[in-house]
Amino acid sequence: MYSQRIIRSYSALFRKFQIITNINRHKAQQVAEKIQIPSSFAADLAQIVGEHNVSTANAIREQHGHDESYHSIELPDMVAFTERTEQVSEVARLCNRHGIPLIPFGSGTGLEGGVNAIKGGVCLDLSKMTKIVSVNAGDFDCTVEAGVTRKTLNNYLRDTGLWFPIDPGADASLCGMCATSASGTNAVRYGTMRENTMNLEVVLADGTVFDTAGKGKRTKKTSAGYNLTNLFVGSEGTLGIITKATIRLYPQPEATISATCHFESVQAAVDTTVQVLQYGIPIARIEFLDEVSVDACNKFSKLNMTVAPSLFLEFHGNASVLEDQTKLVGKPYSTDVCVPISSLPKVITRTKEMIKEAGIIGKLALELDGTCTGEHGIGQGKRELLEREIGVSGIKVMKELKMALDPRGIMNPGKVFF
Amino acid sequence: MYSQRIIRSYSALFRKFQIITNINRHKAQQVAEKIQIPSSFAADLAQIVGEHNVSTANAIREQHGHDESYHSIELPDMVAFTERTEQVSEVARLCNRHGIPLIPFGSGTGLEGGVNAIKGGVCLDLSKMTKIVSVNAGDFDCTVEAGVTRKTLNNYLRDTGLWFPIDPGADASLCGMCATSASGTNAVRYGTMRENTMNLEVVLADGTVFDTAGKGKRTKKTSAGYNLTNLFVGSEGTLGIITKATIRLYPQPEATISATCHFESVQAAVDTTVQVLQYGIPIARIEFLDEVSVDACNKFSKLNMTVAPSLFLEFHGNASVLEDQTKLVGKPYSTDVCVPISSLPKVITRTKEMIKEAGIIGKLALELDGTCTGEHGIGQGKRELLEREIGVSGIKVMKELKMALDPRGIMNPGKVFF
Repeated sequence: MYSQRIIRSYSALFRKFQIITNINRHKAQQVAEKIQIPSSFAADLAQIVGEHNVSTANAIREQHGHDESYHSIELPDMVAFTERTEQVSEVARLCNRHGIPLIPFGSGTGLEGGVNAIKGGVCLDLSKMTKIVSVNAGDFDCTVEAGVTRKTLNNYLRDTGLWFPIDPGADASLCGMCATSASGTNAVRYGTMRENTMNLEVVLADGTVFDTAGKGKRTKKTSAGYNLTNLFVGSEGTLGIITKATIRLYPQPEATISATCHFESVQAAVDTTVQVLQYGIPIARIEFLDEVSVDACNKFSKLNMTVAPSLFLEFHGNASVLEDQTKLVGKPYSTDVCVPISSLPKVITRTKEMIKEAGIIGKLALELDGTCTGEHGIGQGKRELLEREIGVSGIKVMKELKMALDPRGIMNPGKVFF
Repeated sequence: MYSQRIIRSYSALFRKFQIITNINRHKAQQVAEKIQIPSSFAADLAQIVGEHNVSTANAIREQHGHDESYHSIELPDMVAFTERTEQVSEVARLCNRHGIPLIPFGSGTGLEGGVNAIKGGVCLDLSKMTKIVSVNAGDFDCTVEAGVTRKTLNNYLRDTGLWFPIDPGADASLCGMCATSASGTNAVRYGTMRENTMNLEVVLADGTVFDTAGKGKRTKKTSAGYNLTNLFVGSEGTLGIITKATIRLYPQPEATISATCHFESVQAAVDTTVQVLQYGIPIARIEFLDEVSVDACNKFSKLNMTVAPSLFLEFHGNASVLEDQTKLVGKPYSTDVCVPISSLPKVITRTKEMIKEAGIIGKLALELDGTCTGEHGIGQGKRELLEREIGVSGIKVMKELKMALDPRGIMNPGKVFF
């Protein structure tokens, strides 16, 4: 479908844009102090995971010292591949005893430098843990190991009539998506990883393995104790390592309809958006592009879209319901751009001015009650912004929580906050 | 509407059932050690909130020493009414200095003894904090103070075309619903408090006031740092006191359709449930009653429903879409009964046997991957069950988190865990 092609093109372009922004933001990256590794350590590690699963080769360390962002590579001292949760637990215990940083690595598709080994240490590659542990079609859930990616799962599910809709663009590992609280253009209908993660098997710094939702891990609705699942979703490896995830599945849509709508102004698009949202029609996917972005897409992917503020929409459902939904849409609608909807026109207008004035810069989200990150997390890329967003007291609370679970500070140090 | 009347009747009956269950469960309640209050303390408290806002009168203490459950009353030493967040902060600081328990009190409609002053101390009544701080119709959110109840908010919203759909039965305070992670029969469509709380203003034990979502508090989708909002949702006053909540609003449904479906067996209801859910039709409200419950409802509310396993359904939407949805339902569907759907028939069949054998007892949810509490929280009523559900490591993590934020243990002690 034409508008799907455009959305894909835009996603790719947007990733490029973010990468370029990161370069500018981090030219003057500070060098952190590296931890000294005892000489016997690699042998101890090999005892746990096997010789063939430990590497100190430069090529392997380089491959694991960065993600898809342009943060400069920061090499881990070694890379260990684990095949089972018990190995992860033993590695954590070993690292904790020696105070050595431990950085989990899923698919390496992050955009905020979350896997870079700022202080050296052990990069734990989880990509060999590829079991799809269970699919409970009747209950709309499944459990996967840390190395299973989004596309692998959806291929596996193809004949069940179910799918996992959260789509951040890259073919990320699902547990990595939990760790970074990933999201995507489908969020309007299906939510983000926060709403779709039912349980995590987590390994703590001291080697403790536990299920964040205990026995209630396959229950949709629970109010049993603190919500540990959502504490670990988005913790980016700084509180523990996610080794399994139980996530929600959805029926594959019977039919999909795409639509593109052009506007004379950004304000017009947003004004109608709010009104039409009142109808409560469940749209599945939505992306807004101003005329500059449309033009960039045209050039990037050799398209010839009308250069105007545009909304790209997708509806999922059964055929007759969809027909009714699209009938209701004389006007298009939008949501979820990580500022309150009503602040959207201001953000876009002001951003355009600033781009003209000063080259590429980030959006003004924070000044308009928005968030500095809607889908990629903090990593090392947005630590200053998080401080501005959450404030001193909020950061203090987060640090106290981390200290409680990781007193030696070995879990992905230097990420989320300084 | 007939089926709405039945659902209300069933809700009332179910609350009675839970209350009776609680009596049996807690006949042998242990007596906890009370904290000694210094003689100058009431005067110090009055300095903060004013003389008229402190009471040591027996009637007031009794009123605040229990909720709607049959847990025996446990009196606080005194009750303080606060009118502003700054007062809550100062009271917390005062209590923390003296190590005196502090128990927040919203509407007192809980069912697990969450407000009972097991160790004495100060009950903090927040019901005078009744400001609806803001309603952002364009962004579908609003911010309310701790004393605003669900019905008050919905009355206030009546002319805006918006409403807050989470409905636990009682007219609870919205911040209390956050604290207990409340839910209700609408959860199928709208989720629970977990999905609908965007930010909380929280007062910690040391008096710190902060927003759990920082500046991003009105953003739908954020991946900025740890999810503090969802850590405090369901924390039942044991981590801090919720003084304001920013919650999501929804368009009032244009039309509502109710339906009742009878089945020959529980198994038949569940089998068709799973199939029909695959259509992905958004049902708004659902309640399942087996024939024993239907019979009980008939007697309790003088109705004459067919005595058979039955599903009661409600659809929200616009008129033409609803017509299509109901056309698709030759069969009815169900979800969210706090065990995985596929375990439902086992729970119900086995529960019936056990009721016959031994009188009233709780469901077998835990043995079937379910949760001990879908909507009321833990309080003091379900602490043993939480240990069984979450396991030793999970409880240890929760206690470590509490210790980090409330090192002197003054925040609603004796709740959630021992």
